Amino acid sequence: WLINVSIGSLLYREWARYGVFYKFQPIDLIRKYFGEKIGLYFAWLGLYTEFLIPSSVVGIVVFLYGCITIESDIPSKEMCDQRNAFTMCPLCDKFCDYWNLSSACATARASHLFDNPATVFFSIFMALWATMFLEQWKRLQMRLSYFWDLTGMEEEEDDQEKLTCSDRMPGYAANFGLILFMIMLTFSAVFGVIVYRITTAAALSFSTNETTKSNVRVTVTATAVIINLVVILVLDEIYGAVAKWLTEIEVPKPEKTFEERLVLKAFLLKFVNSYDNCPLDIDMHCAPGGCLMELCIQLSIIMLGKQLIQNNLFEIGIPKLKKFFRKLKDERTKPKEMDTNQSKDHQQWDLDYILEPFTGLTPEYMEMIIQFGFVTLFVASFPLAPLFALLNNIIEVRLDAKKFVTELRRPDIVRAKDIGIWYNILSGIGKLSVIINAFVIAVTSDFIPRLMYRYAYSQNGTMHGFINHTLSYFNVSHLKDGTQPENSPFAQDVLFCRFKDYREPPWSPNQYEFSKQYWAVLSARLAFVILFQNLVMFLSVLVDWMIPDIPKDISEQIKKEKSLLVDFFLKEEHEKLKLIENFITRDKQEHKSGTKGERFRAASFCQFNRSQKGSFASFSSQHTEV
Amino acid sequence: WLINVSIGSLLYREWARYGVFYKFQPIDLIRKYFGEKIGLYFAWLGLYTEFLIPSSVVGIVVFLYGCITIESDIPSKEMCDQRNAFTMCPLCDKFCDYWNLSSACATARASHLFDNPATVFFSIFMALWATMFLEQWKRLQMRLSYFWDLTGMEEEEDDQEKLTCSDRMPGYAANFGLILFMIMLTFSAVFGVIVYRITTAAALSFSTNETTKSNVRVTVTATAVIINLVVILVLDEIYGAVAKWLTEIEVPKPEKTFEERLVLKAFLLKFVNSYDNCPLDIDMHCAPGGCLMELCIQLSIIMLGKQLIQNNLFEIGIPKLKKFFRKLKDERTKPKEMDTNQSKDHQQWDLDYILEPFTGLTPEYMEMIIQFGFVTLFVASFPLAPLFALLNNIIEVRLDAKKFVTELRRPDIVRAKDIGIWYNILSGIGKLSVIINAFVIAVTSDFIPRLMYRYAYSQNGTMHGFINHTLSYFNVSHLKDGTQPENSPFAQDVLFCRFKDYREPPWSPNQYEFSKQYWAVLSARLAFVILFQNLVMFLSVLVDWMIPDIPKDISEQIKKEKSLLVDFFLKEEHEKLKLIENFITRDKQEHKSGTKGERFRAASFCQFNRSQKGSFASFSSQHTEV
Repeated sequence: WLINVSIGSLLYREWARYGVFYKFQPIDLIRKYFGEKIGLYFAWLGLYTEFLIPSSVVGIVVFLYGCITIESDIPSKEMCDQRNAFTMCPLCDKFCDYWNLSSACATARASHLFDNPATVFFSIFMALWATMFLEQWKRLQMRLSYFWDLTGMEEEEDDQEKLTCSDRMPGYAANFGLILFMIMLTFSAVFGVIVYRITTAAALSFSTNETTKSNVRVTVTATAVIINLVVILVLDEIYGAVAKWLTEIEVPKPEKTFEERLVLKAFLLKFVNSYDNCPLDIDMHCAPGGCLMELCIQLSIIMLGKQLIQNNLFEIGIPKLKKFFRKLKDERTKPKEMDTNQSKDHQQWDLDYILEPFTGLTPEYMEMIIQFGFVTLFVASFPLAPLFALLNNIIEVRLDAKKFVTELRRPDIVRAKDIGIWYNILSGIGKLSVIINAFVIAVTSDFIPRLMYRYAYSQNGTMHGFINHTLSYFNVSHLKDGTQPENSPFAQDVLFCRFKDYREPPWSPNQYEFSKQYWAVLSARLAFVILFQNLVMFLSVLVDWMIPDIPKDISEQIKKEKSLLVDFFLKEEHEKLKLIENFITRDKQEHKSGTKGERFRAASFCQFNRSQKGSFASFSSQHTEV
Repeated sequence: WLINVSIGSLLYREWARYGVFYKFQPIDLIRKYFGEKIGLYFAWLGLYTEFLIPSSVVGIVVFLYGCITIESDIPSKEMCDQRNAFTMCPLCDKFCDYWNLSSACATARASHLFDNPATVFFSIFMALWATMFLEQWKRLQMRLSYFWDLTGMEEEEDDQEKLTCSDRMPGYAANFGLILFMIMLTFSAVFGVIVYRITTAAALSFSTNETTKSNVRVTVTATAVIINLVVILVLDEIYGAVAKWLTEIEVPKPEKTFEERLVLKAFLLKFVNSYDNCPLDIDMHCAPGGCLMELCIQLSIIMLGKQLIQNNLFEIGIPKLKKFFRKLKDERTKPKEMDTNQSKDHQQWDLDYILEPFTGLTPEYMEMIIQFGFVTLFVASFPLAPLFALLNNIIEVRLDAKKFVTELRRPDIVRAKDIGIWYNILSGIGKLSVIINAFVIAVTSDFIPRLMYRYAYSQNGTMHGFINHTLSYFNVSHLKDGTQPENSPFAQDVLFCRFKDYREPPWSPNQYEFSKQYWAVLSARLAFVILFQNLVMFLSVLVDWMIPDIPKDISEQIKKEKSLLVDFFLKEEHEKLKLIENFITRDKQEHKSGTKGERFRAASFCQFNRSQKGSFASFSSQHTEV
């Protein structure tokens, strides 16, 4: 017990302080004090954080590339150019006036920061990064489970998983509907936000102030997303509870299974909840600068908000509050307990009693994996995500450490061979990220249209005239009655207004139908998706194939120990013989001691053998009882 | 030795005859006689053949569905309808005349057999079939390596592979150029064949006979493919040699590595060689019935030809010939050897000496895996492929058996844990098949255009007028001078001829450009590819996830044995003690026997323990020497 206390204090000094954020974590110590399961969590978190460093560096580079090339970017120049004044169609009926494209200049320039060729490279990079990370984690897990003698648990684990695989199905079918309903709820909430956006857009553009008008879009997006964020945070909490309840009403199952099912449900719900507002906005009519910008604003706000509020406020605040209330209650209940005997050595327990009980690692993993999702899934629309994640995690590690060491009661040690279902979820996200990135680039960014324009439509092979090419004409006289902009200063001298789409012009036989360009660009976009997905998948397979799952040194050590084992067996055989032969010459006492030695050696061998192949894990545990 | 002979004859009776094709193979016997490596090969071949049964059944059903629906297929009806006479543009300059679409009626009707909605379902089915097969093989391999005590070899294997992974790269880089050159050679050969096709097409359509004219296409394709086949068979042999040579000139490596490298190279070359003529033909201008028909003819001929000629002729013929020549040589050299002593028991060796030496399993695997490729990669264009494969394999199994038992010298036993690199190649083909099938359906079949027409362009939602919709107009007056068909009976009263493409009509401002339909259909095709690929991949992952790699019974057995082991250890500890304690009361002789018993039990334990976790495989082998 005393040793544990000393380890605890040591952990506090060396690990659970923000001051030591630059240091590596004392994983073995953590494992000794908290057990394998929590040890693995922190090992995983550490590796993940390390891996975020290179990706955030590349992300910054990509961002800087955007900043540098912004001046030489012809389309944004053309947009900001006052001379070629594109009269854009009103964004809403009646209240919105015609507006000049150059007023969206700021948006366009900003959007170039996130929407440039480098983002394509970056999202390929991140897909490979994810694969690499998972591979490295496999290796680290192998190493840990070798040094922590966890290899013995294999079969049991496998069995468990098989059990869940076959039994999870009905469980799903049962409450699939409820989950669906939840998802619907989320979508409806998001839809509400969108409605809000449109109305506000109208209201704001109603105002006379020119500057407000010009960045209506940004303000609206920002405010809308903040609302979104609140909705998400609230629903998150609800979903957590619902998932727990859903799993409880099912047939009772062993602890691990229960947890896994809970995890899957909670993840499914929270996942949808965190991301669903992004795809929806892609459909919305976007600024000429491309949707990527908006998507980016949204993601950055949500990601930062989620991390700051949820992690730091909830994770620090709530426990502290609970602790405080608990103390208060104790204060009140103390007097009654006073008369019961209490010796000094109970003090520590009292202190512990004040602490929060440990409620499992699920929320920690959940939070990290949703972040992993942000980093991989929408990297194309937000190259700085890894950086934010990194900054958050540097705090996160110490935060969790602090929480485990000081704020929570010490959890009882749980053995675990691996991070279980979380790994599957991670690799699932990795796979999903490829196709989602492909679509984000193909659909939301202007990457493909620009390529198309440069190599197919442009006369001189430059980007000049790109903006004009992407804008279709609309004949003002075709505006339905009542939808024309009221009190518009220059309504009478506008014949055609422009809007961002590939449509047939009013003077063509089939006016306002999708033009040929539209279909050509669409095919190009889809072709890009196919190309991107298969290229990335191929590279991932290559990476997966080139990095062996078992580290070389470990596999060599295992081989060495195997040969040692062989020698040991032979030696033992001989010794047994010798022992028996020169028995008569010795007296009984000596025999006994000899035997003891023998036994001791056998025991130690078993220990070593256990670490060697793990097949005796269960045995040696029983053996020590003997 | 005598035992082996008896096993040999038993194998011959029970396995190596065509008469017993319906029986399961005596795998354990094969393994005893030929060793693990060959045992695994036949086990794999057996499982593969079993798996071909369901797929060929489904294939037949799909084919029959085509036969049944052929009458109700409106497009082919329209094509054969004499009333709506589409005057098609000549297929070649000068010599070819205008022709009536209804003359290609037969082709159209036939092509419906292979190009109907069922093929889409079938190719999804086959993709999942491939995944299922690989999963089942993993399980069977697990089971075999458990019953054959091969689990112990794990580490060594892994090490080997790691070695190759890291060292194979430079090797590739070195002779990558040469392989590329080879591939070029193949393509050029195929190109030559295509040139031949076009010229012959011209020549044949030159003839006056109406029937020849009508099925010019089919005859040409058939003849061309036969040539292709010959080219392929010849190049196959060359490539085998080249690959071997390529691998030899590299830095020497352990046997296994060398073989693996050889395999990869040979496979790469032969693979290209077998399939490269298919994609090329997709680009060629196809009959209005769709290219799928031609692709199908080609594949069927190549597949059948390859199998019949290569397997049966080469595999039976060549060895028999060699054997014959060897005998002849012996006859001539016998007299000199006569005077050397020869006793009766040398006879068997002399007999063996006449036999061919064993040259490795590579060609057997290669052949089977290229067949696997045919079955999975182009299933969309040839639903009967699995059936042909099945028929071939039923012979193949017994053929190889015969060869191994009777025609070859008995190979020295080689231990192998798994089928090694072949598994990777198989899963690689499995992955590749998804995307290739997607493209075959999207690009070569009329599936997408038909859907598009029914739901987008058709007035009444039926397929009526589909043919007309797919044919573009060409103004005869636009034919360059000298390219107009000479001595055409009805040249003067033709104003417009039709050709199968989505082009702007002559009377549109930008005539003969790709029309909007073209781009729309193209986007639909590409969208289908994305949808198909991701759907199938998702399902495969699901299948992979639901089928556990280790069979339940095996994992349970392992667990049981582990607990047995524990008991054994404890018992041994106690026995040792007892043994020592009641030593004095016994006499030395008894001790010895007791010890012997002890030792024997230990030995047997080791055997059993070895099968239990495999970690003692090497030990027990040494132990028996002691």
